[in-house]
Amino acid sequence: MRVLEIKGKTGETKIVLGESASEVPKYAQGGEIVLVMDERVRALHGEKFKGMRIVEIGEGEEAKTLESVQLLYGKFLELGLDRGSCVVAVGGGIACDLAGFAAATYLRGVEFGFVPTTLLAQADASVGGKNGVNFKGYKNLIGTFSQPKFVLCDFGMLESLPRPHMQEGMAEMIKSAAIGDAQLFSFLEDNCAQVLSLKRTAIEKAVHDCLVVKTKIVQADETEKGERRKLNFGHTVGHALEKISEGKISHGKAVAIGMCVAAKISVAKGMMAQKDADRLEELLKKAGLPTKMDARDAGALMQKAGALEKADAQKEAVLDAMRKDKKMERGMLNFVLLEGIGKAKVVQMGLEEIGEHL
Amino acid sequence: MRVLEIKGKTGETKIVLGESASEVPKYAQGGEIVLVMDERVRALHGEKFKGMRIVEIGEGEEAKTLESVQLLYGKFLELGLDRGSCVVAVGGGIACDLAGFAAATYLRGVEFGFVPTTLLAQADASVGGKNGVNFKGYKNLIGTFSQPKFVLCDFGMLESLPRPHMQEGMAEMIKSAAIGDAQLFSFLEDNCAQVLSLKRTAIEKAVHDCLVVKTKIVQADETEKGERRKLNFGHTVGHALEKISEGKISHGKAVAIGMCVAAKISVAKGMMAQKDADRLEELLKKAGLPTKMDARDAGALMQKAGALEKADAQKEAVLDAMRKDKKMERGMLNFVLLEGIGKAKVVQMGLEEIGEHL
Repeated sequence: MRVLEIKGKTGETKIVLGESASEVPKYAQGGEIVLVMDERVRALHGEKFKGMRIVEIGEGEEAKTLESVQLLYGKFLELGLDRGSCVVAVGGGIACDLAGFAAATYLRGVEFGFVPTTLLAQADASVGGKNGVNFKGYKNLIGTFSQPKFVLCDFGMLESLPRPHMQEGMAEMIKSAAIGDAQLFSFLEDNCAQVLSLKRTAIEKAVHDCLVVKTKIVQADETEKGERRKLNFGHTVGHALEKISEGKISHGKAVAIGMCVAAKISVAKGMMAQKDADRLEELLKKAGLPTKMDARDAGALMQKAGALEKADAQKEAVLDAMRKDKKMERGMLNFVLLEGIGKAKVVQMGLEEIGEHL
Repeated sequence: MRVLEIKGKTGETKIVLGESASEVPKYAQGGEIVLVMDERVRALHGEKFKGMRIVEIGEGEEAKTLESVQLLYGKFLELGLDRGSCVVAVGGGIACDLAGFAAATYLRGVEFGFVPTTLLAQADASVGGKNGVNFKGYKNLIGTFSQPKFVLCDFGMLESLPRPHMQEGMAEMIKSAAIGDAQLFSFLEDNCAQVLSLKRTAIEKAVHDCLVVKTKIVQADETEKGERRKLNFGHTVGHALEKISEGKISHGKAVAIGMCVAAKISVAKGMMAQKDADRLEELLKKAGLPTKMDARDAGALMQKAGALEKADAQKEAVLDAMRKDKKMERGMLNFVLLEGIGKAKVVQMGLEEIGEHL
């Protein structure tokens, strides 16, 4: 068991790697525990939480709405949650985002913790204190920064995870390595298959090192005024792709493509050597992730863009989605580039310049 | 002009007393300013904000809902608000609560400030970083703790305020004095009429001293784990009265009655002398505020409680509403009592004990 801590302004988080999910009560403050999970997670893991009350939420990105949050508020009210209670999300990033936001705003904030059941959530989404829901098609437009009290990573839970889900997590792990830990990047190059096949020593080391990158950055800049922006490496273009494909391109795939675009820009600006961009592409391929949009995706976009040329349609749709990125500040985007493997730099860029490399 | 500051974990607030409302741009971070106000406030004060964009919200407590928050999110999206923007609520506590919550959760938090137009909001509601909306009839069930960047108290704006509104503010001023400033309490005893008739020196001193009490408490305990609970003096019973009367008993009146109940309990427990409870009652009467529920209120409650005796109906309805108080913690309420004028103490009490004094 390894333990990491985040001491943030919005709370302190204890991250416990290799802990059993059923140990939740050890980490809550002692009042009523209410678990939040979807039907599928309940069927897989519900038995681990004997005697604790469970509230069900919908599945998938479509459930990440204000309507779902209101349903949770209603349940919390019914169950008589008070400020001594603890809300625990069990599931992937969506369950954590949704339950985290509901808990952070119910009674102006009740205690909450996470038991992430996906690699993506364990290695990334459950840690850092961001929560939120989508609004009118924009991802995470509504939310807060609030640190969970605890995050328990039970690696046994990953065994029921289908391979594409593992790849989703791998995309974020590669991101963490690329922006902050060259040694971890090499480790992933050498051990990609072992991590994806859940070899315990490999996955524990990889998740731990990813979370070290993330906790350091979050602690330095909890509310994303500077340093934390580095965690968005690949995400600016990635979010735009997710948005315009209406979820057909998964988060991990979109971020993989987004990282390649950002690497290309980094090379074009003379900030990074071509061989480092190549290493990034190679590792993504090794993990089974895309490095550019494929023809089918482009076809789907064509329908939206009407008479434009295929390549232009794609580019224009991506730019249009980025225009409404919530990180846009006075018309400029804080775009994350690389100066090499393990070293990120945030650069203010206009949309036009980014467009040249799409 | 007098300036007070709150340095909270969730942000820093500059409170400027005697500043002109039209000086808003001096205090915002420099990006787009979006003002949020209702139609009536716009008609009265809209002209003061030349060249700034205005978003309208509904009037009154009924507007303090998640639906209104969603309308604001939609407007923010339309107007292209980004993290460099500033949302400014102009109005009473409702506008501040609503716009504050929307701003604190939009893009995980954009900058916001308040220009309170009522005495209640200037002397109390706009300061301290609590925001929120009602849910299923429960006041402020949903919200966050987030400090506004600035609060501008323009006393000229109070001139259009009807007398009952001034009394609402006076109830909270008396509360602040009762829990934290015996000298201010004496000042209010001597100058109640001057404050209510807006004599500038009297009102500026009174509002300033109230905010000193509040800022000290908020800074010591931003998220209401201990000290801050003192600000709820009179509010536990008060909120229950507001709830069961379905808004027919105003906030100020409900708090006035609640303070008298709490004073009665303080005396019964031997914590405070009867003469101090009498002084509190006298000052409330001087301000034109009630000190107990009147027969009409009790009559309205009777309809709800059916066959119960009048007195019991009232008591049971109040207790039932308190049972769902969001400050309830593991079945107990943190109830605020007085040890004398200017000195509050938080005591854990069960509902039964409170019920004996209703």
